[in-house]
Parts: sequence; C-alpha cells; structure tokens
Amino acid sequence: MSRHDQYREEVAGRANVEDTPELVEYYGDLKRKGAGALWTVANKIEPWEPASSSVPMLWRYRDLRADVLRSLDLVTPEKAGRRVIYLDNPGRSDVAAAVGWIYAGLQVMRPGERASAHRHSASAIRFIMEGSGAYTVVDGHKMTLGANDFVLTPNGTWHEHAVSEDGSECIWQDGLDIPFVNAMEANFYEVHPDLQQAVTHPVNDMTRTWGNPGLKPGGGKWEKGYSPLFKYEWDRTHEALHNLAGVCDGSPHDGILMEYVNPVTNGPVMQTMGASMQMLRPGEKTKAHRHTGSYLYQVCKGSGHSVINGQRFDWNERDIFCVPSWAWHEHANASASEEACLFCLNDLPVMRALGLYREEALAENDGHQPVTV
Amino acid sequence: MSRHDQYREEVAGRANVEDTPELVEYYGDLKRKGAGALWTVANKIEPWEPASSSVPMLWRYRDLRADVLRSLDLVTPEKAGRRVIYLDNPGRSDVAAAVGWIYAGLQVMRPGERASAHRHSASAIRFIMEGSGAYTVVDGHKMTLGANDFVLTPNGTWHEHAVSEDGSECIWQDGLDIPFVNAMEANFYEVHPDLQQAVTHPVNDMTRTWGNPGLKPGGGKWEKGYSPLFKYEWDRTHEALHNLAGVCDGSPHDGILMEYVNPVTNGPVMQTMGASMQMLRPGEKTKAHRHTGSYLYQVCKGSGHSVINGQRFDWNERDIFCVPSWAWHEHANASASEEACLFCLNDLPVMRALGLYREEALAENDGHQPVTV
Amino acid sequence: MSRHDQYREEVAGRANVEDTPELVEYYGDLKRKGAGALWTVANKIEPWEPASSSVPMLWRYRDLRADVLRSLDLVTPEKAGRRVIYLDNPGRSDVAAAVGWIYAGLQVMRPGERASAHRHSASAIRFIMEGSGAYTVVDGHKMTLGANDFVLTPNGTWHEHAVSEDGSECIWQDGLDIPFVNAMEANFYEVHPDLQQAVTHPVNDMTRTWGNPGLKPGGGKWEKGYSPLFKYEWDRTHEALHNLAGVCDGSPHDGILMEYVNPVTNGPVMQTMGASMQMLRPGEKTKAHRHTGSYLYQVCKGSGHSVINGQRFDWNERDIFCVPSWAWHEHANASASEEACLFCLNDLPVMRALGLYREEALAENDGHQPVTV
Amino acid sequence: MSRHDQYREEVAGRANVEDTPELVEYYGDLKRKGAGALWTVANKIEPWEPASSSVPMLWRYRDLRADVLRSLDLVTPEKAGRRVIYLDNPGRSDVAAAVGWIYAGLQVMRPGERASAHRHSASAIRFIMEGSGAYTVVDGHKMTLGANDFVLTPNGTWHEHAVSEDGSECIWQDGLDIPFVNAMEANFYEVHPDLQQAVTHPVNDMTRTWGNPGLKPGGGKWEKGYSPLFKYEWDRTHEALHNLAGVCDGSPHDGILMEYVNPVTNGPVMQTMGASMQMLRPGEKTKAHRHTGSYLYQVCKGSGHSVINGQRFDWNERDIFCVPSWAWHEHANASASEEACLFCLNDLPVMRALGLYREEALAENDGHQPVTV
Repeated sequence: MSRHDQYREEVAGRANVEDTPELVEYYGDLKRKGAGALWTVANKIEPWEPASSSVPMLWRYRDLRADVLRSLDLVTPEKAGRRVIYLDNPGRSDVAAAVGWIYAGLQVMRPGERASAHRHSASAIRFIMEGSGAYTVVDGHKMTLGANDFVLTPNGTWHEHAVSEDGSECIWQDGLDIPFVNAMEANFYEVHPDLQQAVTHPVNDMTRTWGNPGLKPGGGKWEKGYSPLFKYEWDRTHEALHNLAGVCDGSPHDGILMEYVNPVTNGPVMQTMGASMQMLRPGEKTKAHRHTGSYLYQVCKGSGHSVINGQRFDWNERDIFCVPSWAWHEHANASASEEACLFCLNDLPVMRALGLYREEALAENDGHQPVTV
Repeated sequence: MSRHDQYREEVAGRANVEDTPELVEYYGDLKRKGAGALWTVANKIEPWEPASSSVPMLWRYRDLRADVLRSLDLVTPEKAGRRVIYLDNPGRSDVAAAVGWIYAGLQVMRPGERASAHRHSASAIRFIMEGSGAYTVVDGHKMTLGANDFVLTPNGTWHEHAVSEDGSECIWQDGLDIPFVNAMEANFYEVHPDLQQAVTHPVNDMTRTWGNPGLKPGGGKWEKGYSPLFKYEWDRTHEALHNLAGVCDGSPHDGILMEYVNPVTNGPVMQTMGASMQMLRPGEKTKAHRHTGSYLYQVCKGSGHSVINGQRFDWNERDIFCVPSWAWHEHANASASEEACLFCLNDLPVMRALGLYREEALAENDGHQPVTV
Repeated sequence: MSRHDQYREEVAGRANVEDTPELVEYYGDLKRKGAGALWTVANKIEPWEPASSSVPMLWRYRDLRADVLRSLDLVTPEKAGRRVIYLDNPGRSDVAAAVGWIYAGLQVMRPGERASAHRHSASAIRFIMEGSGAYTVVDGHKMTLGANDFVLTPNGTWHEHAVSEDGSECIWQDGLDIPFVNAMEANFYEVHPDLQQAVTHPVNDMTRTWGNPGLKPGGGKWEKGYSPLFKYEWDRTHEALHNLAGVCDGSPHDGILMEYVNPVTNGPVMQTMGASMQMLRPGEKTKAHRHTGSYLYQVCKGSGHSVINGQRFDWNERDIFCVPSWAWHEHANASASEEACLFCLNDLPVMRALGLYREEALAENDGHQPVTV
Repeated sequence: MSRHDQYREEVAGRANVEDTPELVEYYGDLKRKGAGALWTVANKIEPWEPASSSVPMLWRYRDLRADVLRSLDLVTPEKAGRRVIYLDNPGRSDVAAAVGWIYAGLQVMRPGERASAHRHSASAIRFIMEGSGAYTVVDGHKMTLGANDFVLTPNGTWHEHAVSEDGSECIWQDGLDIPFVNAMEANFYEVHPDLQQAVTHPVNDMTRTWGNPGLKPGGGKWEKGYSPLFKYEWDRTHEALHNLAGVCDGSPHDGILMEYVNPVTNGPVMQTMGASMQMLRPGEKTKAHRHTGSYLYQVCKGSGHSVINGQRFDWNERDIFCVPSWAWHEHANASASEEACLFCLNDLPVMRALGLYREEALAENDGHQPVTV
C-alpha cells in the first residue's frame, strides 16, 4: 500500500500529517470519489522554488552533423515529411522537448527540395546553420535565407521551407512550442490543400516594408499577434550588436544582448516564443544569474564555455545547449581577440505575459559558481 | 524492442516511415546522443486537433460535503496547513488537477480559525459555498465574504483565510493555477514571517474604491497584473445578470454570461485565470460549442444538466463539473420557472494572451449533441 | 509705425534686440515675404508660464434661470434649433467659450418637445439640472434622465434631446468642445436626414450592459474612442462618493473626487473632454493648487465658496463657475453639517494625451491664498 | 447697434431667428450677465465643414536664404537668442504660425557657435538644410547632423543647437508646436541654470541603441511620451523609401511615404507633432485628397508642383509650402528621370489621439483638381 505522508515538512505553515489507518481509509474513500486530501500532496505541489525537470546539456554539432546528413539517404521527404533530428532532453523525453516546453531539431534539405506547406497552432522559428539557397514561404511571402538569419513561421500561418535548385545542402535549427501548445491542449494541424502555396508578394517584401528603423509605411497597419518582420537578417543584427557595444557597457550577465522584437509593438516576435542574440566581447566572462523560463542557445560565432548549475559546458560554433528554468548560468568567451555570439530561443514571452518571470543574481563568490562537474 | 513506427499515417504531408533494422539502429544511435528522428514522433506531437487528457466529470456536493466536514475532526489546521479535499481528475492525477492545469479543492474552516499567511507565484480564487463569517486578507486588505462571493488572492500577494468567532462553519471552493505554474517551473512559496499579517486598510476598501461602475478614484493608479477589485459580491453580480438579461438575448451557447474583469483594464481578473458567472433562464437550453482552454463550473443556483462530449451530467446546487479543452458542451436549466446560475473558473486569460483560443459551434442536429452516455 | 521691440527681456537666453532703422526696414522686407524675425516675438510666444485669457467667473443660477425660461416664449425650437443661453467668458467671447476651449450653455425644453437629431465632430455632454421626463437618444440608444445625471453624446454620434409628454419643463447644462474642434479646424456638422432617429435598442441598455462594476458582458467588445456607458446616474455616483469617503482621506485639494471613466479603458469618457464629481465633506476646506487645463464647475448640492487666483466666489446649488488654466484654486463647504458636491467638466483628456498636464500645490501660507477680491 | 442675425440659415435643424427689438434687448441683458443666446452664434460655431484660417502658400528658399544669412550680421546670438526667420502665414500672424498651430523658422548658425540650453513644454524638431558640423544636444545626448537629417527636441527636454568649429555655416528648419501649446495655455519655459548642459552619453548613442530594426537592447525600457530615437538619419530614411518602393505600389495620394515613428510604440515621434518623408517617383503625379490637420512640407530633393485648393505652387529643393486643414491637395514630380522627396511636419498625432482625423479622396475629374490660379 502506498504511503501518503512522504512529503511531510516540519515547518509552520506546511503540511505535516502522518498516515494513520483511519486516514489511509479516508484517503481511499476520497480516491473513489475522484478526490484527495490536499495535505497529502500540498508540499509536493507547492515547492519552495522551481526545480526543473529538464537536464542542463549540450549537443555538439560535430557529433550530430553526420547523423543529420545521413537522414538524407535514410528517408525520403515524402515518407518522413521533413528530415529532422530533434534534441531529446532526457528529462523531457515524454514531450519531445529540448528544454522545458520547447522543441528543437536540426533539419536538412537538398537543393531543389521543397517541403509540403502546412500550418498549425504551434509557432516556429528557423535559424540557418549552413548552406546556401534556403528560403521560406509564409502566407505567400517568400524570404531568402543565409547563415545566422532568423525567420518566423507563426501560429496559424501557412509555411514551407525549401532550398533553391542552385543552392547547396542546407542545415538549420527548427524551434517550436509544440510541447507547450500540446500541454495547453490547443494544437491544430492542417496540410495545405494544394500541398504548396503560391508566392503572392515580392521576395523579402516584409523585411523591406517593416525593417526600417524608426519608420513605418504610410497607412501601414499590422494587428496580428506576431511580428510582420518575418525575417531578421544576420548582417543587420550583427551590426546592431556592435552599435550597442559602442555606446554602453552591456549586462554583467549577458554581455551585449539584443532581443528580437515585433517592430509594431516592441514586444516579442511571437506570443509564445522569444529570441535574442548576444555578443560576448573578446575575453568577456559574465557573472551568474538565474531566472524562470526555458532557454536554448546556439553558438553562432566563436567558442567558449558556460557554467550551468555548477556544471561546465565547453562550446564551439553551431553547438546547442540549454539552460532550464531557475538554473544558475554564466558564460565565458574563450578568445581574447575574437567575439563570440550566442543565439537564444526561449519562452520569455509566456513568462512575462503571465506574470511568472523572476530573476536573481548570484551574490556569492563575486558572482561566479563553483564548478562541480 | 520498442517500435518506432506506431504513429504512421497514410496522408500526404504526414510521417509514414516503417521501421527497418538500419533505421532502428540509427534511432538507437541518436538516442545515445540525446536526439531522435522527428518522423518517429511527428504525427504524435502534431495532432490534427486537441485531445484532452482530462476526463469530463461531475463532483456531487452531496457526496463530498460529509468528507469535507469530516476533515475537521481528522486533522488539525496546524498539521494539515489547510483542511481541503481536492478534486482529482483521473486523467490529471499526476499534477493534482481538476481539469487541464487547474487545481480545485473544497476547504472547510471553523469559526475563530485563521489560516497562516503565505504567498506563492500561483494565483488563487475562493468562491464561498456555505456558512457565515468568512473573510480573507490580501496584502493587508480584509474582505468579508458570503455565499457566492468571489475573491482573488493573486500571484505574489500575502493572503490568508479565516472565519470570525461569531460565524459558522464555512465551506468554499479554492481554485488555483498551481499545476500550470509548476508546469512552467515558476512556482515560489513563502510562509509569512509572522505567520499572520496585519490588516492595514479599512475593511472592504478595495471594493468600495474600485467597485463603482464608470467611476475611478481621482488620481487613482493601479498598474499591477491583477484586478484591484479583490472581491466580487454576489448581489451585484446577480443584479448584473438581470440587467443584461433585460436588454439582450444572450449567447446561444451560454445564456446570459458576465465575465469577471479587472476594472482598470476590462481584461481578466488575473493573468493566468479568469472567471465568469452565467444565468440559464427558466427553461433555457443552450446549443453546443467547443473551445480550447479548461473550464470548471460550480452550480450556484438551480438545477439542470450539461452534455459534455456526448455524456450527460445532471447537476444540482453546489455540484462542480469540468469541461476539458475542445470538448463539445451544452447546458440546460431543469426548471421552467427558476433560473439556474453557473460560476466558471477557467484559463481563458492564458489562451487569449498567447493566441491559442479557438472556438467552434456545433453545426449538426440543430446544435445539439446526441447523448451517448 | 509699430514697434518690434516691445517684448525685450534682460535675461540671458531671452531675446533683447532694440529696434534700429536698419532692422525695422529688414522686418518690413521679411513681412512682404510672409516671414518675420523670431527675436521680435520670441519672448511673447515663449512665455515663462501660462497666462490664461479666460477670466475666472461665476454664473449665478438665480440670475440666469429666468432668462433661460423666458427663451421658451421668445423663440420656437423650429427657428432657434435649440433654446440655449450660453456662458460667454469675457476673455473668450471670440470663440463663444465659457473657459478655455470649452463651450457651455443652459438649455430648456417643454414636455413633449423633441429636438432634431444631428451629429458633429464636436463632443458633448448634458448634465441635468431640473425637471422630469428628460431623455436623450444616442445612435438609437434611449436614456431616461433625472437631476444630476450625466450623459454623453460623443463625436460623430447621432443624438437628440427631448422631454416626454408626461414630464415637466427641463433645464440642463450642455458642455461641448466646439471651440476646440473649431480651433483644430476639424468640425463637421450634419442634420439627420429624417430629422429624428429611431430608438433601436431597449431603453437604458448601455447602462445595464456596461454599468456593472467588475463585470463585462460575455463576448462584449467596444473599441470606439468613447465610453459605451453613455449615462452616469446620480444615485450610483453619489453612492460611490460615500463608498470612497468611507475608506480614504481624499485629496487635500479636492476632497473626495471620482472621475467619470470609460469602463472599457478606465480612461476618460471621451477623447477630448473629461468630467468628475467631487464631494466636500461637512466643514471641509481644501488647499490651493493649480494645473494646466480648463475647468467648469457646477454646484450639484450644497453651498460654499472657491478662491480662484485670489478672488473669492460664493456659490449655491446650480451655480456654475470656471477655473482657467494654471489658476490657483481652493474650495470650501459652507456647511458644518451638509456635504457639498461639485460636478466638473474639463479638457484633462487632451492635456494628458498630449503630455501637457502639469500641476503644483501652493506651498505658502499653509496652502491658502490671500483673498484679494 | 450690431446685428445678431447675420448667421441665419434656411435649413431645418439650423438657427434662423430674426432680430426683433425685444430680442435685441434680451441679448443685451444676457451680455451683461456674461451670457448669450446660442441661436445667434450656433451656425457660426457649428460650421458644415472646416474652413481653415490658414492660407495655402509657398516660401521660396531662394527668396529667404539671403535674409536668413543677413541675420548673422544684423544681430548677435546673445541679443537675439537665436537667429531665426520664421514663416508667417497671413491667416495666422496673430499666433506666429506657418500653418494651423505649427510654428516654423529657418535658423542659421556660424561654426563654433552654440545656443544657450533651454527647455519648454512646446516640442520641437530640426531638419537640416545646408552646412556641415551641426549638432544638437538633448538631455545630455549629443547628435551629429547632416543635410536632411531629422532630429527631435521633445517637450520638457533640455536642448541646444550648435555648429562645431570645423563646420560651415548651417541652416536648418525649426518646427514647433508653440502656437498650439500656447493655445492650450500650457507652455512653460526655462533657461538652463548653467546656460549649457554637459554631454553625458557617447555621441549618437540613442540612434545606435534604438535604431536597429526589429531589435531592442536587452532589458531596455523607454516609457516617455516621445521617441528615444532622437535622430533619424537621411541615408537610412532614403534607403527605406527605396526598400518600400521595391515591394509596393504606394499611395495614390502620396506616392511612397514613410512615417517617422517612435520605435517603442510604432506611434508618432512626439505626442503633438508627427513627420513623414515621401518620394514621388520619376514622372509621378498623385491624385487629390483632403484631410483634417495642418501640414508643412519641405522639398528635400527634386522639383515639381503641388495643387492646393485649386492653386498651383511650383517648388524646388528647399522650398517650403503648407497645406491647411481640409484643403484638397495633390503633388507632381516635374522630372521623368529623377525622384523628388518631400519632408512633411504635421499635427496628425493630435488629430488621431483626439479622434479628429478625417480624410476624403477627390472623386471627380479622375481625382485631379481644376487649377484656378
């Protein structure tokens, strides 16, 4: 017979009820009626602070790249839908998440291939890792893509990915809130009736229309829940990091960081997922802090290491690593002469919209964690 | 050895890859690297539409009331923290939820008892079912409570419940987003350092300050993420239903329904949970619809039945029942002469803030489900 | 020949150029080209602080009431359009304003009369002073009105005023932003094609739908620039003042003051005009402050006096007085046993929306002005 | 004796009361009480549509430039404050406005000169016309400026203009809402206690921080009522026009138009004044429309003409012309090979914030006005 008093705590204001035969019978009776006694689970469901079920980990690109490419020969796009190797956090295997409620995968496509168009309530991003000729079509808007470009395929939009005939094999990171939308029991999926959608606007029109700083098109309206700037180009983003670095000291925890935003609201690019790009200047070593929310980093440039909950992870370009909710973390650039850049996908928009964001700086040891692993 | 091809679908645009020895070996290799092949899980994690893990069900008050009262003798407040019988949906036992990510319980308190003060990142509501003399203190504001009054104890506020010496045994429904905030790995909990907080404002001051229709106190500012109107009194709410009934036809799906709102924003009372009160007029029988989000109803007045995904649930005053996400549902008042009123606690604020709300009316059979159970 | 150096100031950073024959010729030359030299007008158009062109004044109801009633016999509604005596501030006669850019008039109507329907870009309010049976129709919504009820006829809405057959002669105060909208060169006027509009909704439906504190109708949307709560009833407003008085000390400058608000935004009732109701408790005497914006008060209840820029104005029920922009003002209730209530119409929404609001408390003399007149 | 019936109209719903001896006596009596009969002025103050008091006109730069330069010798900065020739619309001389409530002037400064720092409730813009080395300091932020750069000095900010020692004589257009803020009786003026302010931030820091499309600085907050992007550079703006021209057809009335916006809100750069830059493509001739609000154009590039209320105005680079409220207007580029660009300063933010904006396209004659002058 299972115990009901394994969560007892000897603290005023917390539950501390020992099992007795009478109580156990009472619990059984409640169970039959679809009920339970709160004091048997209160301390479990009201923890003192978050303890993430996600495991801090790093996926090396040099380990996974060959597997990704191998999928080109193992399965056809027609059979597989998309050839994607997803990141499977051991603590989140049940929901196929890389960290928290965020799904991520590495997708590969050959020149001339074009995925079938579909749409779903989950929101997605695509971050280009290698290859030329990649493009994405979102609700009739075609965007051409190069390395480190960041593109959105928001909740409810028809979208498809492709590589042009004159391109090369392309690999990119997909990021989706599929686990979250499933958890919210709100996921819908549709295949496009024609399997492919028409390109109905000039190429890159959204970037040219909405990507002009401090300017908006006359009479232009955009009231959807996501950014009209579907594509965020690397050159502009990289330039922005240097613009900012020239006029401020940056954050002790994140160096020089820019958040990707919806230019119409200055808020997150989509309602459920946000992203940022940060630069660790040559020799920069940040201090530790922790915050709620789940974070998935990709190294865009340079090499270095991060310490996450006391564990050190060394990283190189294209490696991916995760920081679970409320995990201490700090970053260090390994080079004294070259910058390092980290792309970060996260669920901050959810945490902020719902009043659940909280952060804390590490006070001890000059802000640095002892490295235990 | 487990199969990897159990989710295959013979539909263009969906994954349909059969296991082969080579693939199975490949899958094993990926597993060891913390990765997987998307096509083995794609159809599972991208369902065509939501299928809730919550079971539609009804908790009869006449079944549970005696158990609730019995807890008065079985445990002390000091040991139990609070004497609460929680609703344990068989599909959500792992997270102690009544439906979706919503926790609910029936709490009982004797005259003269006062719970210890605490605060947490989870948000809570309290809906009074029976007894006199109940009151709640939120951040120094004391509110007196009667049957069908609805009170908030939002995310981060110090709060405590009590019954005055001259009151009677009180029972109320608690509702919290504990399962959700835990799922988001953002729950923090603190016991008040003094175990009890001082009442620092006149009794019911927030209702008297913010509960005047079309008026706000001069110079009054409120910028927190929740309603300053901590208490919503039944008399006013009931009157509002009749006001509205006198000037409109109401909704075919919900009769006369008022949403409880933050008077400063006209938005939800809290960022993660919303609530409404609806009246089914004498003889009223609504048509079926379904929407995303999780809903927990309490019958405040009258009797009738609801049909949820084809299953009929008959209800009486104080019964509680749930409607899982995307479940068809319709309601009927059993009386031709008396109104019936339903209080509903839900996670609509989350669904709306994140762009995940969707609804659909039943087109067939004049909007009524065939009753199968 | 006119001088150009009459605004000289001997202060560093201010213009201080003396006329010379060469300069005067230069000024004449500029004039012919549609230009001028800024330094000849700079100190005039950039004053150190506002000096209102409006004169503080009080209109006694016992002086004007007979004139208002006399208009019933002097002109017909057909010829006059409306029988209104407007308040003509000597400093603002050129724009027919009572104070600043606010127009106000006293309108009278006989039982059974109904004005022709029209609409305009100017926004209007109506505040009932005496009589029974008054009603207003706004875009098909009919509202019944009694003394001290406050009703809106916003920018662009079809509206008409009337008194029912079984009513009595009614007098009310009109308030409009006509002078402001004219100054902005944005006024349009239309007479209803049928001269009268149909009542298309249940009587008082907007109040019954939107006037329920902390509740909104399910699915109810309102996105117009003005309050859907067209009518603010005196009973509720009066009750609200007492609610607030019971739980706070009020403002040292205004006693117990409630702002009328749009319940959907908690902002002003209309985009260009706001209003408030305040109560001076028995014996209450407020301290002086001043702020930008123009204010027109009507005494709803009681008697007392106000000191405006050092001038004392004694008032009784139904008197109207104005406080120009940046004028010092303080109020006193004459009674030690009865409350006094002041309705105030103002352009605060304009001042706030455009970042032009500023206020200052009088520091000297314990906050009281020396009375000079 | 003055007549009181000069505004009579023979239209149902309009005032139409003829003077009689009795009425005239009544009017005199009212006058003595600070009142009047509405029907004597109603038709005057409630016009059928706006008739602007501003005169459409054009100021030729080749006419004014010599006068502007001459001021360098005629007055010292110490005596004049600033050497500015202001545009004096004959219909608005009483308030020193170029059009509506907008003030504009041409300011000149020698290398090495620096104006004294001040601040006021009026908001200002500066648009560079010629010369090198100009810069502006706003609240400690220094911005370097070149031709066609647009810079803000918002309501309440300390600001000063200067030209560096190694620059050349600079001329720019000032634009302020002084007449409007005076009309609202809300203007305050202060000279900086030190006459000059310190530069406390890196040069051009606001542009580098906030001028990155689709990106915001991590943790960056800006809640003031105006844009943090104080400077809008011509190169970026010009590039934006071409970006937009490449992907859309533009407006039939305005060609390719971009509004300058606050990147934090996507709203206007300041609460009381807005601005736009538009490009008329080679050979482009727009169709006429009219809208409420006042508009002041400067020709940044190219030549052409505009037709305003039937009057043709030919323009060349640096000419300035105005379009009064509700005046029909259309523009034409004179060149078949070169683009023309128009900068426009306006009070659209006021019109929009207050619900007073209205527009209409000319339906007749294929959208073109007959030219009468």
